[in-house]
Parts: sequence; C-alpha cells; structure tokens
Amino acid sequence: MAGTDSTRAAAPTVASGQAPAVVLVRPQLAENMGTVVRAMLNCGLTDLRLASPRDSHLDPKAIAAASGAESVLEAARLVETPEEAIADLHRVYATTARRREMVKPILTPREAAADIRKRIAQGERCGILFGPERAGLTNDDVALADAIIEAPLNPAFASLNLAQAVLVVAYEWFAAGADVPPAHLPTNGSRPATHGELLNLFTHLERELDDCGFLRVLDKRPSMVRNIRNMFERTGLTEQEVRTLHGIVKELRWGRRRE
Amino acid sequence: MAGTDSTRAAAPTVASGQAPAVVLVRPQLAENMGTVVRAMLNCGLTDLRLASPRDSHLDPKAIAAASGAESVLEAARLVETPEEAIADLHRVYATTARRREMVKPILTPREAAADIRKRIAQGERCGILFGPERAGLTNDDVALADAIIEAPLNPAFASLNLAQAVLVVAYEWFAAGADVPPAHLPTNGSRPATHGELLNLFTHLERELDDCGFLRVLDKRPSMVRNIRNMFERTGLTEQEVRTLHGIVKELRWGRRRE
Repeated sequence: MAGTDSTRAAAPTVASGQAPAVVLVRPQLAENMGTVVRAMLNCGLTDLRLASPRDSHLDPKAIAAASGAESVLEAARLVETPEEAIADLHRVYATTARRREMVKPILTPREAAADIRKRIAQGERCGILFGPERAGLTNDDVALADAIIEAPLNPAFASLNLAQAVLVVAYEWFAAGADVPPAHLPTNGSRPATHGELLNLFTHLERELDDCGFLRVLDKRPSMVRNIRNMFERTGLTEQEVRTLHGIVKELRWGRRRE
Repeated sequence: MAGTDSTRAAAPTVASGQAPAVVLVRPQLAENMGTVVRAMLNCGLTDLRLASPRDSHLDPKAIAAASGAESVLEAARLVETPEEAIADLHRVYATTARRREMVKPILTPREAAADIRKRIAQGERCGILFGPERAGLTNDDVALADAIIEAPLNPAFASLNLAQAVLVVAYEWFAAGADVPPAHLPTNGSRPATHGELLNLFTHLERELDDCGFLRVLDKRPSMVRNIRNMFERTGLTEQEVRTLHGIVKELRWGRRRE
C-alpha cells in the first residue's frame, strides 16, 4: 500500500453530501492539515472544514504534505468556530482519546461508519470533529456532537496523531461501503488445473520417484504418495504451473549431470 | 483520539510472538521510522525489523517522531535483507498499492488480521512487509510473501504514506483482537515450515535446476524462479513436507538412472 504509484484507473469522485465532512477544530500545523487531506482523499472524503486553524492551510508545507491531495485543501471551508462548521449537518461525531463524563453514545470507528452510511442513505448530512494536535477537543467541543467515536487502541498508548486519527475513521467509512471483493487468487491468465491434469502430474512424478529409488521402502510408499499428492492438491495449481512442474521433474531426472 | 494525553491505565504488553512483526524493507527517512513505531505501539505491536534502512532508526528525528514509542525503535532488529528479516517467520504478508502479476492470495487488511489472529493462536509466527516510501516493495520482495495485503482505498488516490499503511494493517489486527477461534490446523503433527527453511529448499531446488539446464534461458530465469517460489509458498508447507521435497529433488537429480 505504501508507494506513490497506483496503476488503477481514476474512480468517480464522491458527490457532496454523500460522504461525511471532516472538521478540524483549531488545528495547529500546516503540515498536519496536508497529511489529513491525503488521508481523506485516500478514503474518498473531500469535504474539509477548518475552524480557526493556526497556520494557513495553503502554506507550502501543507501543500507538500498533501502529496497530490491539495485540491481538498483548496476547497476547504474556513470558519471561526466549530458551531459554524457544523451548522448545516444533521449528525455530528466527536473523536476523543479519553473518556469524557458525558451522557453520549460511544461508538467505535466501525460502528460510526455503519451509522454514517445509514444516515447518509436516509438523506442526512454527517460530519466528524477532530481536535487540535496536543490537547484534543475540549469538553465544549465534544458537547456539540451527537455521539463520540473512540477507536480500539492499545490503552497504554492510545494517542494517534491528527492524520492517523482521520485515517482510522475515514478508512472505516470507506471500507464499510467498498464493494470489497472476497479474498481471491489471481491466476495470471492461466486457468485452474483439472483433476485429470493433476493426476497426470502425480503419475509422472511417482513413476520417476519409483524409478530413481525415492519410494523404494514399500511399506511406506502408500503414505508417502498420499502426502506428496496432498501437498500439491491443496496448492490450487494452475494449468501453467502443472506444466512447469512436469518440466521440473523431467529435467531434474534426465537433464545434464555434472561429471 | 487525537491528542497526546491518555488517562487510561497501562495494559500488559503483548508477549513476543503473540503479535505480528512489522518488517520495513529499505525504509528511507528516520522520521517515517518514528511515525511507524508510534502507529505500531498504538495497536500493541512491538516487533520491528529493519532491512537496510537508509537513515539510522535512532536518529533524533526518528525518536522525536516516535512521540513516546521509541522503545520499539531501540528494540528493532537490523538486518541486511528481507530474507533475513523473515527467516524465523511461518507466514509472511506483503503490502502493495498496485496489483502484481503473481499467483498469491490477496487479502484486505481485515481478512489478513483474522488470518494472522488464527495463525498466531496455532503457534505460527507472522510478519508483514512494507516497502520503501516512494517505490514500494519490488516484485522480488513480494515473491517472498505467502499472501498480499491490499487495502480498500479510493482507487483514484490509493497511495498511503508508510506510517499510514502500517496503521491500517496494525489497527485491523488490534480491532480483531476479541474473539479468536480455537486453534485448529491438521498438520499430521509436523509444525509449519519457517521462511528460513523454505528459502533453503528454494536455494537447493534452484541450484539443481540451474545445473540440469531447466533454467538455462537467462532472461526468463527471474520470472520462472518467482513463479516456482510462489507455488510452494502459498501451499503452507510443514517442516516435514519441506524435508520430503528436499529428498525428492535430490533423488530425482542424483538417484539411479535406467541404462
């Protein structure tokens, strides 16, 4: 996943209101605003709102850290207060690292992602508040929210940096909606081998193993043959790989020998 | 979640081998090594291995970026090659941003987390490879792994920075923590082979294949070697099976020949 080159085609961007807004409350460092928008765009989020940032979000350090996601910075809405930032939203979530003494539902990022998906499908607009780098959201900020998001993290070391916190929530949101393909095995264009082809391979291998003496202990032969067949059967060989294995057996057996 | 202050109590640390190792292959920047260990420790991971890092992992920039997780940097294992870094591991995953032409299972971070939890419960040691900042893992690096991890991300902007990639995988591992299914792996009493044992097998096989002439077409050799390794890596060989394969290669090659 690391690395700058993706060969995949561009996807249609997420329509406004179809994804949650990210609200940074009093962010300090330009560089962090840049890494935040990179994490947002990684997960298809483009609606950024900045409440009283200290540095400029268009500072060269922010642009550099955005690594190609600077369009999100350029489109950000600048406001004075978190109240203004969330005025048009129906449902607001506050991210916190430590438990607050407030009567509010506490959701994991995964639960929040499902909740946000459901509400957006019902036509609601949602947003997520993230606090400043050092102190996090104040109790007054958190009080603005309908629910709290708290990530399952090592309780002895639970503090994420700002972009990491945005990534965890945004990643869960994206993952909750992605048509995630089931785990699969790409086969490089070669079709899976048939069982007939596998049997041919086993017959070839076992003939040569009999012949060279590997299977000479007769009372062990049945279990050895079974174990060898098991090994190759569970691999899920392609037709091309079966041909490669035929070649390996043949050449090991009959190829040139050093004198 | 953002903010440096966590008021929760310290938790018992994860015992060695109970969590996957993080292997950074040729990382460049000290600062990134620092942000990586912070993300690791956020998710309870402490086993870091560095294969030929460019900067020192104890550079002041790394320590500063670790934000309190520098113990993970100090305990890191420094090695020359990814092969050394994974020699003691049973199951290795490679993270990639773009699709490779290799016959390997592709898992989401969530699927990989479940797989790692299950394998660790069975006593296997697992590790995850992350490539250098700009280029990512090479095809040869990826060929060392049993499976590929690819995160569901905006296909138009899928490149995560190094610490973000580590965070997504580590976070899924931590979040999967609760209910681990009971250990079950029918292996006929033989333990899974380590990657060191697999590499020995590959070296043996390739030496004999060079020698008998099977790999004589030099410009095809790298891809053939990769395909052969892939085939055996994804099988999940036991230590007993690796010994059987050594025997097969030796006897096919040097056993008796009909006149």
